[in-house]
Order: sequence, then structure tokens, then C-alpha cells
Amino acid sequence: MNSFLSMKDMSNTEIHRLIKRANEIQKKGYKPFEKQYFAANLFFEPSTRTKMSFVVAERKLGMEVLDFTAEFSSILKGESLYDTARMFESIGANLIVLRHQQENIAKELSESIHIPVINAGDGTGEHPTQCLLDLVTIYQEFGHFNGLNVVIAGDIKHSRVARSNAYALSQLGCNVYVSGNPEWRDDRLDYEMITMDEAVEVADVLMLLRIQHERHNQHEDIQVDSYLQNYGLTKQREKRMKQHAIVLHPAPVNRGVEIDTELVECKRSRIFKQMENGVAARMAVIESTLRGGAVHENNLNKRSAITG
Amino acid sequence: MNSFLSMKDMSNTEIHRLIKRANEIQKKGYKPFEKQYFAANLFFEPSTRTKMSFVVAERKLGMEVLDFTAEFSSILKGESLYDTARMFESIGANLIVLRHQQENIAKELSESIHIPVINAGDGTGEHPTQCLLDLVTIYQEFGHFNGLNVVIAGDIKHSRVARSNAYALSQLGCNVYVSGNPEWRDDRLDYEMITMDEAVEVADVLMLLRIQHERHNQHEDIQVDSYLQNYGLTKQREKRMKQHAIVLHPAPVNRGVEIDTELVECKRSRIFKQMENGVAARMAVIESTLRGGAVHENNLNKRSAITG
Amino acid sequence: MNSFLSMKDMSNTEIHRLIKRANEIQKKGYKPFEKQYFAANLFFEPSTRTKMSFVVAERKLGMEVLDFTAEFSSILKGESLYDTARMFESIGANLIVLRHQQENIAKELSESIHIPVINAGDGTGEHPTQCLLDLVTIYQEFGHFNGLNVVIAGDIKHSRVARSNAYALSQLGCNVYVSGNPEWRDDRLDYEMITMDEAVEVADVLMLLRIQHERHNQHEDIQVDSYLQNYGLTKQREKRMKQHAIVLHPAPVNRGVEIDTELVECKRSRIFKQMENGVAARMAVIESTLRGGAVHENNLNKRSAITG
Repeated sequence: MNSFLSMKDMSNTEIHRLIKRANEIQKKGYKPFEKQYFAANLFFEPSTRTKMSFVVAERKLGMEVLDFTAEFSSILKGESLYDTARMFESIGANLIVLRHQQENIAKELSESIHIPVINAGDGTGEHPTQCLLDLVTIYQEFGHFNGLNVVIAGDIKHSRVARSNAYALSQLGCNVYVSGNPEWRDDRLDYEMITMDEAVEVADVLMLLRIQHERHNQHEDIQVDSYLQNYGLTKQREKRMKQHAIVLHPAPVNRGVEIDTELVECKRSRIFKQMENGVAARMAVIESTLRGGAVHENNLNKRSAITG
Repeated sequence: MNSFLSMKDMSNTEIHRLIKRANEIQKKGYKPFEKQYFAANLFFEPSTRTKMSFVVAERKLGMEVLDFTAEFSSILKGESLYDTARMFESIGANLIVLRHQQENIAKELSESIHIPVINAGDGTGEHPTQCLLDLVTIYQEFGHFNGLNVVIAGDIKHSRVARSNAYALSQLGCNVYVSGNPEWRDDRLDYEMITMDEAVEVADVLMLLRIQHERHNQHEDIQVDSYLQNYGLTKQREKRMKQHAIVLHPAPVNRGVEIDTELVECKRSRIFKQMENGVAARMAVIESTLRGGAVHENNLNKRSAITG
Repeated sequence: MNSFLSMKDMSNTEIHRLIKRANEIQKKGYKPFEKQYFAANLFFEPSTRTKMSFVVAERKLGMEVLDFTAEFSSILKGESLYDTARMFESIGANLIVLRHQQENIAKELSESIHIPVINAGDGTGEHPTQCLLDLVTIYQEFGHFNGLNVVIAGDIKHSRVARSNAYALSQLGCNVYVSGNPEWRDDRLDYEMITMDEAVEVADVLMLLRIQHERHNQHEDIQVDSYLQNYGLTKQREKRMKQHAIVLHPAPVNRGVEIDTELVECKRSRIFKQMENGVAARMAVIESTLRGGAVHENNLNKRSAITG
């Protein structure tokens, strides 16, 4: 098995190989699998963009897609994730793509079934394919990571995107900063905290995060009105950014909250470019789980059962 | 871009070209696209028949289908239609098929994104592919439109089908009448109003509309029991129709309301034939948006980005 | 038409032909249909496993899948199953796979439309493809059915699986017993009732049923805690089973209720093997409805319209 679970597990060599492959896919094309492979997309949280991005990636690679959303399912009949996943394995799935509200569950699952698992977001844990597409986008822009100042700004505490990116970017040689409401700081991400006014001055890459309304306590007071002024990218702040600096956001954007709505498609925004890169990044990851280019080299010996 | 938005926009030449192409598709066959194209079916209102008809049309043309229904989506996270559509464009969609509760929204969207949009029903606005399949059905029957008496009967006010058909049929040379509860008259459709008893005598084509329960105020009094007697096609009335006259209904039929249940599959009913024609009509429309046969000639110059 | 509706209708010859074909499909492979066929999967009850199993079977045979779940549909607009099915037939479906809460409805439907219907579970009626996969699993194990002791244990009354299996297994020469809470006995299944302690001694095949919580009255008292001890397969009981005896369960399993959780993947469990066999069994059934190998010989003359 050859799962793709966390950026924390990955070496720089592995990351660079995937970035390179995603770029190749975009520029030189790709070859669909010759065999008929089935991907089971198990989504236990609402998702359009990540799920659709995987579907496009899978179909481009010629895979069949088994679409599972929690609401229409045996979950109603009380089945565990393990039993659901084993069922998909039994009926012929070659790959599981898992979005789930519980941290670390993709890793647990990958240890108990015989087909690879791709973590498509686990609670407030990680979201490694989102991270990879961010890395692809940054690399396309700068051609390297060494010494780049990357500011991750916003709802750090509830963001798996923040966590995956912070791990990977540090390891790749970036200077990582965090910014935002101090209450949303995450002790696991021990990076220098700066204000948004400082962030726009220092950043080569300003990575805005979405407010995860659905992960906040209902009674918690999110001052949406003042958020943009206090912690977001206003038009005034955008003008003070370095000439070459770019803006990322995992989307969906809360327009007028994390970023002024007029900046969503401004010249330095790579927001829709990120989505485009997401398909290629996920194709690279899927290839690596099902066909050579192994991400976790130590798992290579387990692959014969799947691809043989 | 080469969107398909409204019957109002279309010349008789364009309409006849699409009718001819739909007939060719049924009789001589069709060729799937050689490239892998993705259709994003964005449905913000419940729909089985229209959506499934598009899916069959898309798959027959070899297209990949990205299925989006509002309930399972980032809509929950507050994303606008524009952002959703741009996301689909970014991940590789080549076409958007849009069903939405808001009038005119397909047109608005088509002006802000770079891929063609097909209007699959916009609120009480238009439903041009439904209209086209009605036209195909009428043309198959009579071989022309000149001087045909077409009565559109029922819930005119809430029917986008009525609107699209009235525009197109008038322009093609039919004599259009409306019939039904005077309260459901629509000022925008200024055609002679006749009773159902008059309608069955005069009609070459009797086009029944579905009561749009979901668009009526909850407390509005729809006398379902007396509707058939007052405004519907009873068995007695059907007997008085011209020998060659046909009955259309966009379905789903409220059996025993708009039409006596025994007449749904009577000799002059073309209700299931309409559905069959719907697939060919939609294939003709999709082809025209993605491959030659341009519907809006003045947009032809914008197409190279999509098909090139 | 060549529907697959009930095990009651089938001769031993027909059953053996399907079992043989399912085995061939697994061992020697299969050929996708050359034509583009569309399967309409109409699911009016929640189902993951049966539906996904059909999707895999259909895609392996190269079929297009039209996915219909009751919640997102014209059902909201009050359409009958007949009208829905006729619509799918009209837009080009070549096959209907039907899961519905109403007993006998697949048979009724098959008599009024022109394409074959596969019963994927009708209320508390039958679930013949589940039965077929059980038969395939038993046959793989023993190579015959003559004189095998099969105990069907659990919620007999609410189980369409029990009904289909009891019919088929008796006819094939097995000695069928039932076991479980006497209140859940079904008068239509007049087999010797034994206790679970007797069952484990006598069974060559112990077929456990899932408690159908959703079919029980909310206020009915299901003693989940004591169920395993009273009627289920405990670790103690499992030790007393014949050496070669196997355990089946249609899944999803209520772990710790019908069976001790540690036994779900024990050596004699064929639970995940059943799922694997389900795909091949359904492929054999689909082939028989669409391409030769007719299940109901007397319907063969009606097939030209479909495959011609």
C-alpha cells in the first residue's frame, strides 16, 4: 500500500517529485491507466471543490468513480468507516479518497485495509493534497522555496490547510509566519505571529485561510464586519505588498471577509490558478499511489497486490 | 463563448438548424467528441427528467459529467453562483448546464465566465431546451410551423416552458393561444385567451402545462379537484379534438389534474415522445456550443479558446 | 423483456447457469458490451452496498449509469414510479435496477414497461441478487447444494434476503432451518425453527441476518444488549461449529449484535467474500437480461426490441 496521508511524513525529495510530476502533467500531458481502476470517493463532510477536483483528476486518468456521501448511506444503518471502506475494497475499489471530520482517521484506516488511502481532509488535522497544490502554485511562481516569506493568515486553529502547509513550507526552506486573531492561534504551529499590516510588507506569498464557520461554536463571536479591517486583505493593504508577491486562498472565499471582493481576481491573486493546479496535483498523487513514483518508499513492497 | 440561453435571442434559421440536427441525430446517428470534454451540471432546483436527459445527451456525446446539486455543496459555505461556476471552469469544465430558481441568471453568468452556459430553466424565465424538444416534436408531426394553431394551456404565469414556447412558436409562424385560469395569465404573453372547450376545437397542438405547485403561495387555493373539469383535458374534450391534433406536456404530469390519467398515453399524446426527442435536442444544443453549428454567430470568434 | 425479479420464478437450471457464469466472470474474465447501454438505478430506499455493487458491475460491463435517488427527484413533484420508469425508458435506459420499499413492485413495473427490471430489493419481499451472491458463495465452498444444512438466523420476518434464500436453497436441495426470536418468525417460511445453540451444531452454512431497525416499529423493544447472547453468534458458539462450516451475513453487520465483532473476519466468515461475489453475480444477471443467457426463457421472444 502506498497511501498519501500527511505532509509531515514526506521528504523534500518526495515533495519535489510530485511537484515536478504535476507540472509535467499540465505541460506535456498524461496517460490514462490502461486497466480499469475504481476510485471510491468517501466524503463524510460537505465538499464541492475538493471532491469535484478529485473526480476530474480520476476521470482524466481513466478511473471509474464510486461516489459516496454520508447522507445517503449505510451510515444510517450504523456502519463504521472501516466496514464501509472494506466493503468498497471487496467490491473492487483500488483507491479510497477520504474526507472526514475526524483527525487522523485516514491514517488509521490506511493501516487496516489493503488499498491506498488519500487523505482529502481529516477534521482539523491535515489536507495534504490542498497543500501540494499550494506548493505547485508557489513553485510555478518562484521556481524555488528557499527563503521565501510565506504568511499564513486567518483561522489557523481550525485549518488543516494551515497545518499541512506550515509543515511542508518550513521543511522546504520557507520562512513561515502566522497572522490573525490571536485567539485562533494554534500551539502546534509555533511560528512568529505578525499583524496583517506587517504581513503585507514581508510576504512573498500571502496565504489567506477561510473562516471555518462550521467548526466554530455557534455562540462564539465572529466579528465578520470588522474581520476584513482587522485581519483581512483590504484594498489599502494590497497596495503595500511587494511587487512580485502573490495571494493564495484555498476557497471557497468569504468575499469581503478574508479578502476584499474586488481583490479575489486581482493581478496577484492565484486563487483560480490554485484550483487549476489542484487537478494536476491530485493526478500526480493518484499516479503515485497506483503506479510507480511511490510516495512512501518503505511501502513499495506492498504494492504488488494492487497493481500486479 | 457560445451559450444557449433563451429562445428570444434566436433567429428562425438557427432554430431550424437545431431541429434539423436533432432529427439527423435520431435517424443517422452522431459522433462522440474525440476530446475529453467535461460538462458541469449545476442544478439548484430539484429535477430528474431534465437533468437525466442532459446526462444521457452528454454521455452519448462522450462527455464526462460533473454532477452538482445545491444541497451537497459549498453553497452551505455561502459561495456565490459565480464563484461556483468559476471553480468548475478552473478545474476543467468545458460547459455549464444551469438550472436555477432565479430568472435571467444563466444569461448573467454567461457574461462573466469563459465557457458556454446552457440554460436548463431559470426561475419563471425560460426553458429553451424544453422548448426546442417541443419544436422538434411538432416539426416531426407536421413538417412545418406555418399557420398551426398551438394552444398553451394551464399555469402560464409560473411557466418558463410557456414563455420559451410562445416566443419561438410565434416567430416560426404559428397562431398561439393561451388557455386556463385567468388569474394565471401572464401580461408578458399577450396572446388571445380561450377556454379549454374552445381550445380542443381549434388546436393542432394542445400544449398542457404542469401546475407548478412549488411556485404557488402555500395559502393560494389551487382547486385540484375541479381543475381538470375547468381547465384540463378530460376524456369528453379529447374526443372533440381535430383528428390530426396532438397533445404535449412537459411532464411530470399531475395525472387527473391537467389531463385525465387515461389520456396520458392516448393515441394523440406525444408526452413520452417528447422525452425521447429531448435527448436528441439537447445533443444538438451541446454540439452547437462546443463544436461548430454555432447558435449565436456573433460569438463565434470567441470560441477558439474553448475548442482550440 | 427479460427481467430478474424473484428466486421463486427460477428453475434450478437457470440458477445453476447464473452461478456458473458468475464463477466464469471471476476466473476467466468478461467482455464489456459493445453497444452503449444505459442502466437506470432507481433507489427509493437508502443503500450503499447494493447500489455500489451494481454500479461496479455495470461499469465493468461498460454500461452508463443513471443514478436516481428518491430524495432529489420529481417524486417531490408527485410522480408515480411508473411515470418515472417510463421517463427513463423514453430517454434511453436499457435496464432498470429497482430498490423500493413496496413488496412486489418490481414485478408490477416489469409488466408495464418495455425494458428489463432487476429487483434490487422490494420491501419485505425478495432480494434475488443478494440471494444469488449467497448461492455463489456457498457453491464456491461446497461445490454442490444437496443435503447441506443451512440455518437462516435472525430477523426473518422483515428480511427479503431470508425469503429469497429460503425459496432457492430448498429448491436446490438444501435442508433449510430458521432460528431467532420466535416473534420474528414468518408464516410464509414454514421451516423447522431451532435455537442458536442447536444451529451452530447442525449448520454447514450459518446465514445471519441483519436486524432491520428501520422496519421495526419505533416503540418495539429490540433488546440489543441481550440479542447476541440469545440469538447471535458468540465466540463460544462459534467454537462449536463444524470444522468446515461457514458464516454468511448480507451486511452491513451490526457488530456485537448479530455476531461478535471479533468474528466478523474470522476464518469461517465469508462476509467480505460475499460482497466480492456480489459484483460477479450481478454482472451475470445483467448479462442475462441484456445479452443471451435468458433467465426467463418464455420472455426470450420479447428481446429483439432491446438488443436488436
